[in-house]
Amino acid sequence: MEKKFAVGIDIGGTNTKFGIVNRNGDIIEQDRLMTNAYDQVEDFIDAVHQLLMPMINRAGGVDAFLGIGMGAPNGNIYTGTIEYAPNLKWKGIIHIARLMQEKIGLPTKLTNDANAAAMGEMLFGCAKDCKHFITITLGTGVGSGIVIDGKMVVGHDGFAGELGHTIIRPGGRLHKSTGMRGSLETYASATGVRDTALEMLQKYPEEDSLLRDFSINELTSKTVYECAIRGDNIANEIFEFTGEILGESLANFVMFSSPEKIVLFGGLTKAGDLLMKPTRKAMEANLLPIFQNKVKLIFSELREADAAILGASALIW
Amino acid sequence: MEKKFAVGIDIGGTNTKFGIVNRNGDIIEQDRLMTNAYDQVEDFIDAVHQLLMPMINRAGGVDAFLGIGMGAPNGNIYTGTIEYAPNLKWKGIIHIARLMQEKIGLPTKLTNDANAAAMGEMLFGCAKDCKHFITITLGTGVGSGIVIDGKMVVGHDGFAGELGHTIIRPGGRLHKSTGMRGSLETYASATGVRDTALEMLQKYPEEDSLLRDFSINELTSKTVYECAIRGDNIANEIFEFTGEILGESLANFVMFSSPEKIVLFGGLTKAGDLLMKPTRKAMEANLLPIFQNKVKLIFSELREADAAILGASALIW
Repeated sequence: MEKKFAVGIDIGGTNTKFGIVNRNGDIIEQDRLMTNAYDQVEDFIDAVHQLLMPMINRAGGVDAFLGIGMGAPNGNIYTGTIEYAPNLKWKGIIHIARLMQEKIGLPTKLTNDANAAAMGEMLFGCAKDCKHFITITLGTGVGSGIVIDGKMVVGHDGFAGELGHTIIRPGGRLHKSTGMRGSLETYASATGVRDTALEMLQKYPEEDSLLRDFSINELTSKTVYECAIRGDNIANEIFEFTGEILGESLANFVMFSSPEKIVLFGGLTKAGDLLMKPTRKAMEANLLPIFQNKVKLIFSELREADAAILGASALIW
Repeated sequence: MEKKFAVGIDIGGTNTKFGIVNRNGDIIEQDRLMTNAYDQVEDFIDAVHQLLMPMINRAGGVDAFLGIGMGAPNGNIYTGTIEYAPNLKWKGIIHIARLMQEKIGLPTKLTNDANAAAMGEMLFGCAKDCKHFITITLGTGVGSGIVIDGKMVVGHDGFAGELGHTIIRPGGRLHKSTGMRGSLETYASATGVRDTALEMLQKYPEEDSLLRDFSINELTSKTVYECAIRGDNIANEIFEFTGEILGESLANFVMFSSPEKIVLFGGLTKAGDLLMKPTRKAMEANLLPIFQNKVKLIFSELREADAAILGASALIW
């Protein structure tokens, strides 16, 4: 039987998205579940299996499939394992590619979630025909995929491209999972924006803010965004602050690999210009003149779920 | 006539070193001059020409040479130009490969000085047979050469690998040439160590120090080293401080490209363990667990002048 399809699975800190992809890069069908609802990785595999098998069967059964491509935090392309992922409940070294392969009965490959997204951008998105670019995923955490000379950078051990964990504010905000201080992820993620909101509301106790109408549980990067577009000063300052730190980090990355493009990606990019303007300003201000006004800093044009699923499936083609 | 030799020229912020290299990587003869003694690049070319031609003639004349390989700060392999090098007197875009080629009459290629040093390490030094490594040159400035999958990283425009200008202390020490604040180079260069010494002597006015016996002009990274090995507290703290910042930066670089080795290079490495111990400690402390205790952080075993000349000449072979 002709192998017409691949499965793409994107395991994120919050959601796991998966879909059936054909050779043209069309997603035939897709679904999702909450990653951290499963304390044991075996239960997670069972849940994916339960939702995925009917989709596979509707597409003609496992015989119509070439395999499964997966993206996951700290996913290693060499070993098929997730190793010590700070944003997942499963600790240590998780042989997820092997477990998935045994459960579904299809050859399974794994890579870093952010690398999968970068492959999606390279094959189907705004980094098409671009040989030097970096994608930064601004979601629950901050992920990154680096492409140099048309090749994914995975390093000597498969773990390269953990830019969310680079230190940009030495001695700064504590990362609850890694124990490190001042990493990019503690500021430029959805969690980071929420923490910045809590800090700023405390810093300016006298200043009126729409943010004060929300309970601490309701306060998310989304509510901060909604208050910002309604003109709230503190909410706007939160995005200025976030963009400033993100932009400084991007400048550092540019001076490493001198990419043509940086593609921003993930939930936080819904803030649009509120985030883009201060980010671009801080990036340019921290670049050597030889790098200034050269890098195209853009938002991904792919739907987030799509890019990750397509990118993961690309491991198989 | 058989082309048995190449010229290697390394243009540094302080010295320019050049030599005649054979195909085995032996330096037959070498010499040097002060780079910044020449306000005009044409005068610099004349001075190199005057010293180099007798060496070329002793080796059999230009006909015995394949060409000239040069390394220079902000040297661009695509264009043969030095562009806006902050540590050189020649401003703007300098067509140095073309000028040298016209003057000497040999095909001339140019790359970044730190990339040349990395090529020297890869061909003849302690990165032999290593496909993923970074070299950091700790001299007047801080340079870097990045190798991924056995290939020099030059980026889309030839300028990749300016790690000395990445920001590690946002809002920190002012870089007198670039105008940027808190870049690695302002701390982990010979100039940076001297500035740290001046700052610390001011910070602890009550504390006795051998460093106070030197005039401000005499105070260099070398005098700081000599005082440190004689047990001077402030001098030792200067290296602790320098290593801490350097190590934090190295951790960030590791999380970018996950190299097998980092090779440190240049004048500051003469400090040996005084620099290595705090650097390694800070690097490990700022790495995610997946990267810890994996990276070989070592000093170059090549003589500094040799690696740069050999690396530059390697552009030609």
